[in-house]
Amino acid sequence: MFKKILIANRGEIALRVIRTCREMGIQTVAVYSTADRESLHVRFADEAVCIGPPASRQSYLNIPNIISAAEITNADAIHPGYGFLSENAEFSRICADYGIKFIGATAEQINFMGDKATAKATMKAAGVPVIPGSEGLLDSVEQGKELARGIGYPVIVKATAGGGGRGMRIIKDESEFQKAWDDAKMESGAAFGNDGLYLEKFVEEPRHIEIQVIGDQYGKVCHLSERDCSIQRRHQKLVEETPSPIVSPELRERMGQAAIKGASAINYEGAGTIEFLVDKYGEFYFMEMNTRIQVEHPITEEVTNFDLIKEQIKVAAGEPISGQNYTPQRYAMECRINAEDPANGFRPSPGKITQLHFPGGHGVRIDSHVYAGYTIPPNYDSMIAKVIVSGQSREEVMTRMKRALQEVVIEGIKTTIPFHIRLMDDPGFKSGIFTTKFLESFDFSGL
Amino acid sequence: MFKKILIANRGEIALRVIRTCREMGIQTVAVYSTADRESLHVRFADEAVCIGPPASRQSYLNIPNIISAAEITNADAIHPGYGFLSENAEFSRICADYGIKFIGATAEQINFMGDKATAKATMKAAGVPVIPGSEGLLDSVEQGKELARGIGYPVIVKATAGGGGRGMRIIKDESEFQKAWDDAKMESGAAFGNDGLYLEKFVEEPRHIEIQVIGDQYGKVCHLSERDCSIQRRHQKLVEETPSPIVSPELRERMGQAAIKGASAINYEGAGTIEFLVDKYGEFYFMEMNTRIQVEHPITEEVTNFDLIKEQIKVAAGEPISGQNYTPQRYAMECRINAEDPANGFRPSPGKITQLHFPGGHGVRIDSHVYAGYTIPPNYDSMIAKVIVSGQSREEVMTRMKRALQEVVIEGIKTTIPFHIRLMDDPGFKSGIFTTKFLESFDFSGL
Repeated sequence: MFKKILIANRGEIALRVIRTCREMGIQTVAVYSTADRESLHVRFADEAVCIGPPASRQSYLNIPNIISAAEITNADAIHPGYGFLSENAEFSRICADYGIKFIGATAEQINFMGDKATAKATMKAAGVPVIPGSEGLLDSVEQGKELARGIGYPVIVKATAGGGGRGMRIIKDESEFQKAWDDAKMESGAAFGNDGLYLEKFVEEPRHIEIQVIGDQYGKVCHLSERDCSIQRRHQKLVEETPSPIVSPELRERMGQAAIKGASAINYEGAGTIEFLVDKYGEFYFMEMNTRIQVEHPITEEVTNFDLIKEQIKVAAGEPISGQNYTPQRYAMECRINAEDPANGFRPSPGKITQLHFPGGHGVRIDSHVYAGYTIPPNYDSMIAKVIVSGQSREEVMTRMKRALQEVVIEGIKTTIPFHIRLMDDPGFKSGIFTTKFLESFDFSGL
Repeated sequence: MFKKILIANRGEIALRVIRTCREMGIQTVAVYSTADRESLHVRFADEAVCIGPPASRQSYLNIPNIISAAEITNADAIHPGYGFLSENAEFSRICADYGIKFIGATAEQINFMGDKATAKATMKAAGVPVIPGSEGLLDSVEQGKELARGIGYPVIVKATAGGGGRGMRIIKDESEFQKAWDDAKMESGAAFGNDGLYLEKFVEEPRHIEIQVIGDQYGKVCHLSERDCSIQRRHQKLVEETPSPIVSPELRERMGQAAIKGASAINYEGAGTIEFLVDKYGEFYFMEMNTRIQVEHPITEEVTNFDLIKEQIKVAAGEPISGQNYTPQRYAMECRINAEDPANGFRPSPGKITQLHFPGGHGVRIDSHVYAGYTIPPNYDSMIAKVIVSGQSREEVMTRMKRALQEVVIEGIKTTIPFHIRLMDDPGFKSGIFTTKFLESFDFSGL
């Protein structure tokens, strides 16, 4: 087992990793920028090394400084957390070159999954459902129509250079095809100077549902069930839950097996997540694989009782996994508490926390690096805490979450808590029937 | 279901009950003495009524004031928590007279279990093992010897008027009987002016192990496994864990069935606990039954996922229980954090908490009513928080507990945390092999 792990991250995830290391009897090294001197991750680590000024590029993304910190402290492994260098193939490779175990994917695996086209092709070859569509650009409207007939309507044509919804048309049946094609061509040509189009099946009423997997060095991969992350604002997850209200045991089994196939195809070791879109027919399609721990991992921990960071460390140290797939026995939900003002377009609200009180009691877990008197720097992600609750039913979890959120006292800054409390009372959310577009029509006024 | 529950208690257990009521959509009424105006239980309740000055007798034990508070707020039930009026038969009866549901035992049941001789006779008749011994006082040394032959040595003779170990002798075999008898007679006559003696089997290497039961109005009783509370100082529990390191599945089954028999014998409804002594041979003996929720109930919640307060309320409202006995799947431990100085004979240390930070993360639960800026009044029990951890093994739980305790920051007062941290490193404690006398030889110096 490792003697000393350097955590190449900050905030709650750095503290999260330190906690498990302490429980495993492993020494820890925190790294921090000058903006983070007062963070709890610095205080609770056995050693701490300043790696640069506030700008991430000069500190948390500064590979030479982080490698130096590992060398001077004699760390034998690096845990990258999420974000920053966690899916940086070069960093993974350099760690390997220096004989420091990178607790994450190999450079090769990161590259495989980092490039969307390669990832999609690899998954398709492994038998994982991917969104059907054209291989590259369409040559003609006739080719598009023929493809759409095979895939089935609705389909979507998208500008290869596109973004932000421009150069994109949903087509419900063949009679609409020609006009949509012409419009998308014109729009993308005008907007991007490139009118190349490709075609995909349009995923109706999509939900974002992901499968947690864990693999070891001996070729064993198992899945730990799903997380439903459909509650998103501008592709940022705000609330996650498990099990998903719309995943049947049969669908879970199919998605779980697909995720195992996908991870096995790249000989994946450690904790990873295969993200899928699930449509209204219960069909699912590969979106991407995250080769790292995720922000929302605690809800899986709460229902499986596994410590996922411990599992990551054990697998990295060469230990085998038990290799059992997990069937959910409980419910869990996470709300990401951000230092943002939900009444003002979620504008960041950094500053000094003057009063702080977190909730406790049955089924409540808090993961946070902040404390009363702490000043949130403006330089990084605005997440300041995760409130995670678990219980025997989805209803119990929602009422417990509301209770816990109402107990939180945070003064000095604005937070997203009022949004989360309103969400817990929302009939659409309570019904369990919603899509990734749910928050587009949510009433944020007066929060 | 009840519309409004008054909580006739203070501190963490009052807050604990309020939390569950909130989750169930039940309104809450807090009561408080003038010393407790600033407690969180007052802040988090929907309504709060001052019931008197700091002295418990004039406030938390003041039945007329509490009944008045329930009447003026239209509460339809009262939860008594633990301590104070929770096992007061008169209070239970008066609540019934006023048409307010007492969430606890009936006056009759409380009386049955409050009187030790009656409780023992009732349990014995129900087939629950009790400590064998004389029925009342011994007439002669010969009667004592004959009884001891039947019970088996070692036995103990005790002064009926005794206490504090005086007038008490352990007898290992018959050759020691006469001298022990004479000594105990003389000592008790001199100390208490009453030399009456009785005899019991001496329980060797006792552990305090209790079974949580829950019963409903329909005659169903089930058990939720055991809690080991052997870590005690002067009969005060300091640490509790489940499952017990020394309870085998076979012993658990026997103790569970005995507890069910005992509770069924008095038609018990609600949550209750049957406390046993377990000796080094794995034999167990009834000590007493607590007809209320216990301080250490959260460890059972963490391993069973039941919310015991919710179960109490549901049963009191007439709902049936599922009636399944519970086999432990996980491990949990609780440390009671007291405002006391462990380096100075656990002297109470009330006062203002100037800084406060509780730990979080996987498997950590905090139940506490205190916060930064709160002043602990000197009038009540010194417990200020319960740190409860759960995990997949006893070892994981102990390392997690140590990690959590090390993260706690409490400034302004002394607490028992240094004792708990030392305990987590103690080889005797770690071994799982200890008795209720473990702390008598514990090194408290330099804490």
